[in-house]
Amino acid sequence: MKTRVLAGLCMVPLLVIVYLGGYWLIGAAFLIGLIGLKEFYEGFKNMGFKPAFIVGYLSLFVLYVIQLWAPNNFTLILLWMFLSVMASGLYLFKIEDRKLEDAVTTAIGIMYVVFFSFHIALIADSPDLSIMIWIVLIASFATDIFAYFSGYLFGNKKLCPNLSPKKTWAGAIGGTLGSIICCGAFGYFVMPDMLVHCLVIGLVGAIFAQLGDLTASAFKRKMGIKDYGKLIPGHGGIMDRFDSVIMVAPVVYYYMTFVM
Amino acid sequence: MKTRVLAGLCMVPLLVIVYLGGYWLIGAAFLIGLIGLKEFYEGFKNMGFKPAFIVGYLSLFVLYVIQLWAPNNFTLILLWMFLSVMASGLYLFKIEDRKLEDAVTTAIGIMYVVFFSFHIALIADSPDLSIMIWIVLIASFATDIFAYFSGYLFGNKKLCPNLSPKKTWAGAIGGTLGSIICCGAFGYFVMPDMLVHCLVIGLVGAIFAQLGDLTASAFKRKMGIKDYGKLIPGHGGIMDRFDSVIMVAPVVYYYMTFVM
Repeated sequence: MKTRVLAGLCMVPLLVIVYLGGYWLIGAAFLIGLIGLKEFYEGFKNMGFKPAFIVGYLSLFVLYVIQLWAPNNFTLILLWMFLSVMASGLYLFKIEDRKLEDAVTTAIGIMYVVFFSFHIALIADSPDLSIMIWIVLIASFATDIFAYFSGYLFGNKKLCPNLSPKKTWAGAIGGTLGSIICCGAFGYFVMPDMLVHCLVIGLVGAIFAQLGDLTASAFKRKMGIKDYGKLIPGHGGIMDRFDSVIMVAPVVYYYMTFVM
Repeated sequence: MKTRVLAGLCMVPLLVIVYLGGYWLIGAAFLIGLIGLKEFYEGFKNMGFKPAFIVGYLSLFVLYVIQLWAPNNFTLILLWMFLSVMASGLYLFKIEDRKLEDAVTTAIGIMYVVFFSFHIALIADSPDLSIMIWIVLIASFATDIFAYFSGYLFGNKKLCPNLSPKKTWAGAIGGTLGSIICCGAFGYFVMPDMLVHCLVIGLVGAIFAQLGDLTASAFKRKMGIKDYGKLIPGHGGIMDRFDSVIMVAPVVYYYMTFVM
């Protein structure tokens, strides 16, 4: 319980950063990418693979330099993606020392951790809608918290016992309802014109938050680790805490780009 | 020799398709992606992994539907990328039957084969510069052919004996010069205003063509196969023939977008 409270306190600086927005938020996205990538690659090391940490870090660094220099320039981001995948392949050129899995896991770390979490920066740099970053956090964390409590109170039928033994249908439904309610409340009080959009994102975001959580569980099971890290007391690493956020951020970003 | 001539004849329909351009060329890019992905995944199967063919094919199909519906829409392409990587991860949900490598190789096939070769379609749909597809082919194949002959005539010092034992420095230099000369000739006769750009792409394209060739060699060595396939007599599969093209196409596309 004490560690849970401590972990809760860790969220305070996060809220301040989200409130400040702009470069602060882009910096936070960068840090999530950096620490998340390290944790993700360490997980692969646990399987006996050796992802190219240096390629991953360099790719992350280049992406954020691009973003600072030319915000939300998608042609440059596609170029970055091409070069990152290519660099992961070039890593194989020292052919005796490296396994195919080393190259492949390097690339997947970039695509999953760096690219997914980068959508936080894309939202932060969206001129009119950067406020939507709140919806990302609300959908992610409301799903998490409401799923926890409704699973605890009403849960019996297991959702996917093989993948994540503790999850129940009651938790999934409660988490989804909680997300819709909290996103709706945010919409009602902060951006009433967009209430319907907030409710829709509350629903879709909750689904993707849970998919993100389960994906992270699947990765960790296969990597043979319980948590990605020990950074946050009682909550594991950055990737344990933000596994939903990095899945919800893209959903919110594309929703606000194509629908709102 | 007979098979080489046969293989040469196989290039004739390719030239017709490039001449026709437009939907024909986009269709050709789709086929390269489709057959290339199959060959690439088969290579992983040879290592005991089971990439999700269905996820890869579906991802390819969706990408080309997007391109036909909204050509060169980069936000949609980023969304496609997010969903494709995510779908590869979801493949793990049947957790008993699937290995982490199955998901990761699924994603890398999409990023490498489908995304790289898709730049052919991006070039085909570039209103003013779709002619640059010729430069992609000229740089790729001139590098290949000139490297072969100059390696044969002058080669002794090995380029990277561990990775690709037959390649020589003479071949690499001859291939690069051949690409510059052929791209320059194309520029001189067809688009004289752009001669300098053609020469630069001749140089840069030759470097990436050879990196593409070596990357494919590295993958094949690790997969334990000599060729990706047997589609083209004497030339292996689509991926053996187009390993340079799928690396040069992005280079040409980003060059023409940012520099020309």
